[in-house]
Amino acid sequence: MTRPSGRNPDEMRHISFERNFTMHAEGSVLVSFGDTRVLCNATVESRVPRWMKAQDKKGGWVTAEYGMLPRSTNMRMGREAARGKQGGRTMEIQRLIGRSLRAAVDLEKLDGFTITVDCDVIQADGGTRTASISGGWVALHDAIQSLIVDGRINADPMLDPVASVSVGIFDGTPVLDLDYAEDSNAETDMNVVTNSKQGLIEIQGTAEAAPFSDTELQAMMQLAHKGIGEILEAQANAIGD
Amino acid sequence: MTRPSGRNPDEMRHISFERNFTMHAEGSVLVSFGDTRVLCNATVESRVPRWMKAQDKKGGWVTAEYGMLPRSTNMRMGREAARGKQGGRTMEIQRLIGRSLRAAVDLEKLDGFTITVDCDVIQADGGTRTASISGGWVALHDAIQSLIVDGRINADPMLDPVASVSVGIFDGTPVLDLDYAEDSNAETDMNVVTNSKQGLIEIQGTAEAAPFSDTELQAMMQLAHKGIGEILEAQANAIGD
Amino acid sequence: MTRPSGRNPDEMRHISFERNFTMHAEGSVLVSFGDTRVLCNATVESRVPRWMKAQDKKGGWVTAEYGMLPRSTNMRMGREAARGKQGGRTMEIQRLIGRSLRAAVDLEKLDGFTITVDCDVIQADGGTRTASISGGWVALHDAIQSLIVDGRINADPMLDPVASVSVGIFDGTPVLDLDYAEDSNAETDMNVVTNSKQGLIEIQGTAEAAPFSDTELQAMMQLAHKGIGEILEAQANAIGD
Amino acid sequence: MTRPSGRNPDEMRHISFERNFTMHAEGSVLVSFGDTRVLCNATVESRVPRWMKAQDKKGGWVTAEYGMLPRSTNMRMGREAARGKQGGRTMEIQRLIGRSLRAAVDLEKLDGFTITVDCDVIQADGGTRTASISGGWVALHDAIQSLIVDGRINADPMLDPVASVSVGIFDGTPVLDLDYAEDSNAETDMNVVTNSKQGLIEIQGTAEAAPFSDTELQAMMQLAHKGIGEILEAQANAIGD
Amino acid sequence: MTRPSGRNPDEMRHISFERNFTMHAEGSVLVSFGDTRVLCNATVESRVPRWMKAQDKKGGWVTAEYGMLPRSTNMRMGREAARGKQGGRTMEIQRLIGRSLRAAVDLEKLDGFTITVDCDVIQADGGTRTASISGGWVALHDAIQSLIVDGRINADPMLDPVASVSVGIFDGTPVLDLDYAEDSNAETDMNVVTNSKQGLIEIQGTAEAAPFSDTELQAMMQLAHKGIGEILEAQANAIGD
Amino acid sequence: MTRPSGRNPDEMRHISFERNFTMHAEGSVLVSFGDTRVLCNATVESRVPRWMKAQDKKGGWVTAEYGMLPRSTNMRMGREAARGKQGGRTMEIQRLIGRSLRAAVDLEKLDGFTITVDCDVIQADGGTRTASISGGWVALHDAIQSLIVDGRINADPMLDPVASVSVGIFDGTPVLDLDYAEDSNAETDMNVVTNSKQGLIEIQGTAEAAPFSDTELQAMMQLAHKGIGEILEAQANAIGD
Repeated sequence: MTRPSGRNPDEMRHISFERNFTMHAEGSVLVSFGDTRVLCNATVESRVPRWMKAQDKKGGWVTAEYGMLPRSTNMRMGREAARGKQGGRTMEIQRLIGRSLRAAVDLEKLDGFTITVDCDVIQADGGTRTASISGGWVALHDAIQSLIVDGRINADPMLDPVASVSVGIFDGTPVLDLDYAEDSNAETDMNVVTNSKQGLIEIQGTAEAAPFSDTELQAMMQLAHKGIGEILEAQANAIGD
Repeated sequence: MTRPSGRNPDEMRHISFERNFTMHAEGSVLVSFGDTRVLCNATVESRVPRWMKAQDKKGGWVTAEYGMLPRSTNMRMGREAARGKQGGRTMEIQRLIGRSLRAAVDLEKLDGFTITVDCDVIQADGGTRTASISGGWVALHDAIQSLIVDGRINADPMLDPVASVSVGIFDGTPVLDLDYAEDSNAETDMNVVTNSKQGLIEIQGTAEAAPFSDTELQAMMQLAHKGIGEILEAQANAIGD
Repeated sequence: MTRPSGRNPDEMRHISFERNFTMHAEGSVLVSFGDTRVLCNATVESRVPRWMKAQDKKGGWVTAEYGMLPRSTNMRMGREAARGKQGGRTMEIQRLIGRSLRAAVDLEKLDGFTITVDCDVIQADGGTRTASISGGWVALHDAIQSLIVDGRINADPMLDPVASVSVGIFDGTPVLDLDYAEDSNAETDMNVVTNSKQGLIEIQGTAEAAPFSDTELQAMMQLAHKGIGEILEAQANAIGD
Repeated sequence: MTRPSGRNPDEMRHISFERNFTMHAEGSVLVSFGDTRVLCNATVESRVPRWMKAQDKKGGWVTAEYGMLPRSTNMRMGREAARGKQGGRTMEIQRLIGRSLRAAVDLEKLDGFTITVDCDVIQADGGTRTASISGGWVALHDAIQSLIVDGRINADPMLDPVASVSVGIFDGTPVLDLDYAEDSNAETDMNVVTNSKQGLIEIQGTAEAAPFSDTELQAMMQLAHKGIGEILEAQANAIGD
Repeated sequence: MTRPSGRNPDEMRHISFERNFTMHAEGSVLVSFGDTRVLCNATVESRVPRWMKAQDKKGGWVTAEYGMLPRSTNMRMGREAARGKQGGRTMEIQRLIGRSLRAAVDLEKLDGFTITVDCDVIQADGGTRTASISGGWVALHDAIQSLIVDGRINADPMLDPVASVSVGIFDGTPVLDLDYAEDSNAETDMNVVTNSKQGLIEIQGTAEAAPFSDTELQAMMQLAHKGIGEILEAQANAIGD
Repeated sequence: MTRPSGRNPDEMRHISFERNFTMHAEGSVLVSFGDTRVLCNATVESRVPRWMKAQDKKGGWVTAEYGMLPRSTNMRMGREAARGKQGGRTMEIQRLIGRSLRAAVDLEKLDGFTITVDCDVIQADGGTRTASISGGWVALHDAIQSLIVDGRINADPMLDPVASVSVGIFDGTPVLDLDYAEDSNAETDMNVVTNSKQGLIEIQGTAEAAPFSDTELQAMMQLAHKGIGEILEAQANAIGD
């Protein structure tokens, strides 16, 4: 088996995090997983969602929104704003990003604040959701740092760092970090989100062409832990830890 | 650890499939997983989706839609038709059901037909999506049988049977087939879809309160295979195999 | 003239009310008018509509929503939630149900509460709106009883019972309680709602194929009173009066 | 009982039809029922609705749309175009107008044409739907005449003329043609549509405050026939018959 | 060059303002620019927009909405309320009208009130937006007068009167007040809004077929000032100054 | 008068065009006007709009869409896709961009093709619409070049280059290329689009705080010609002419 990119089965694409990519957001990161580029902007607002107020729930909130620029893909996709609604795939992905990033934060310590992480895909080549989570974490980190630096919160609400990668079965072989050429032909595609202690936060695996076995699941999990380890290291380097 | 329902950790709720529940649909099944009741109606139409026509793609299609009656839940939920759009959870679930049921069918043999499986939740007590997939498979089976009996297709397009169950970590213990009392307090919630050969079709696991380990993942997978085995047996009994 | 069902012109279909059909709603009734089956769930909420608050209007409110499951009909209908809006027929019917049920209640005595009656058609064979009103009344009754039993209201707000039936001119003859085979071929179709004293609450008559005369109107009114009388009796039996 | 307007119980408001009110429409009529003014524009298009094509149904079609200018009423109403949907009342009314006007036309003779009658309320003082039907009939007549004059259809598709009036019970007395002051305080409000032979096309009666009896229904029907007779005469005068 | 209407290049169409056209609005004006007729209704409400409240901004607000009756044009246009959204052209025009009319009012003196000017096109023959602004000003004037007469505001908030006209290049010649026959064939189309001191409030010029020069721009500006002068005079006559 | 940026009244911000910014689009340009950054992607599709087909109109089409990333601005704006519609400002701007770019192309020579120019604002600091037009022209140029290079069209459809700049009156002085600090406080704001021969394609001037005179209009026009001259030069350099 040869991967379209020539990579080894357990080899990640080049990963980078460009912080302060735009000037207005409290956290702004352009994340690249190979040719996939996602702009992650974290916004801090002094408010909590209506449902938290209604339930008199203490703490803060972290949420995410996801979008693809119409021509981030090979064929132009219709603009969701023009079509008048977000598609099912968009909703599914932004719910996944939101849950994953909330797992990285002690929401009680974020009391009174909502952080919205906007993940907008500038260029897509597979793995936009895992890049969004991984880059979104850096943007979230920077936004929360700004709250700490400004003395708006007392205790650091960041828990263990969180990152995400895709794994799959391509041509019968478990592979790490699928690009579009693999993703569109893989038998199985799985997205894994963990923290820095290999604690699983989300796994979403789909048999695209053929069912996969428990053994293959375990092989993919191992690849995922390896890949996420490298992403966590790159995140740490990016934020200067 | 005692489950709210008093069940053993690896014990399913009572499962039943009531076929021909309504009179118009080609396949109509009321599935019960304990107090969760979902009406699954499979509709056969002599058409293929627009995108298949546009791509000159051969074969047929299977899709699913999901809805909850406003008072299927403990608190009344606003009607999606009145709010003017389907929520993200609805879209996520109906995409999952659709993918799962397509894995049970050789679409090429369904040439020219679309089968839509409507899963409408009459009463919810946890596990509506796994009940929908499991009951939807029976409705799909009946609809396809009607095509065969009527001589509208030549070869049986049914592949291995498909079923689904939820597993989770409740109070530190892996448990099978969570009801609402567990689901709303579980540390982890995972939905598993497999075929009758334990081939994995979908897994979607979410750490609600605490990350879970690879070991816990494996324990949950074992429970899932046990539970799905029982559901597959109940399906087989229901269709009289 | 022979009716497709073989019934006499003044003969109702079999009517039944299955109370406590689901477990969450304060009132939950599966009503059957022959093969037409509608699930009527009444929900009590401690709030009044915004417009009542804005006008400082005293009392409570009763409203209704109506929907058809996509495959409750012979041909599958698109799901209104997916199409993004409720159709004109749906709106017309749920407004009719709401007005009819409000006529059964002294709203002042329901002070501070809103009761929403959801009428969801499980299986359609003509007369879904009259079944909804008649079954909705039983669900409304049960919901209000729960308020009285729980001591949340002091005085019983129920006025005279309300029921509804359809009448029409089929093949030149006035007939009672049209099923789909008649409904789709009738010259005239009329829905009548009255209370138990034959007080008219709503009449909506439409000449589908040919105008009807005042004499025919009177003949249909007589049939309607007969039919509603039987429904009111079945309602009384159902609630155990 | 004295009516707010000082009219006798069986006295209509002044009715007028101003033809050719605008210059583009094939039929354009400003109808006045007292202070209620509705602009009815009938448009002829060489097409039939999609559902007729799909069913290979012969003939033509007549349909109606209804709207109120935001400040046609005492309090400004939000613009439906801005709110993004037509309300239930609007849909109910335009469906009523459409059914009523279709009863005035032999659709087979309108082969290949759709006539859309737009009824836009310029000023509202009660009875906008009955004015719309009565004025819409004149606009429809003019549009069809233009088809005949231009030789685009061979046979005159107009059946018996159609008109509509409201009746009600006000302060215990049956009254004809309610204005807003009566309409908003009537015990019962009923809209009646007939042809010129007193053939009933639509009746929609609602008990606003108190149920009404069969005797009151008959009294209202008599008033309705009287009123519609006068409107039909005014229509005939307007079109010069 | 001969204009389709036979007018001189610097000749306006006949302009008229019919005040109190409807009875409910605080200001109600039917404005005619030749065959173009727009009903402008100004509504006074004792409230300010949500964003003003949120910003604790003093004063009042003036806004506008625009719509075309479906058959105000030569071909019937789909009703925006039925299509579920206002088109881009509608939004563009109502934003222009709103900005133009706000320039005629000292908003601080309108403290606590919102005036909404609804401009609904009854009949279109070019220049509907300039007619809307010019007629809307008269309706706005009347609405504000009613506030003054009723003693609800102390100081007159009206600033210099505002009016608008279109100019263009037709067949190589600058022309004033284009009708539809010109508008649809002009090389350039420009809408100008000024106050009574020739102070420019809005200019929007578009090269439809060929770019225009600075010299042509100046020639068109001169025509615009001439035309607006005549409209301002007609406005003054209408309000009896 | 000192500009917030310290620039001279007739001094542009730094302008740059980064071509091939993304890899999928036929033309992809990141344009910067100072801190304002807009990604302009031009997509070529082998189709014409429905209305062109319906009218059997020859040639091709150029259109534009505009969007702002939620956090391109100082305060986060709600995502239009999530709100379910594009706002009036968005529609107004994308219509302006589309008209401006069409003026740069001989549509007949683009026979059978539609080019869509998506302008997505990455970072906003005033002048996003003028940057979009100027950068969109470069993207459009590149997309059309790819058609020529690939031999899909025979004749070059590009007409004179088109660019755009904003001018305004700030603190009483006419200024060129307003940034946000000026834009939000200017008395007048005007956007000018011309071709390389100073032929005017669009002018849209708005008196934000005070009406402006014809003399000021002319002064602003002179500044606009100067600024557009510099942009055209930068465009020419970017495309290597």
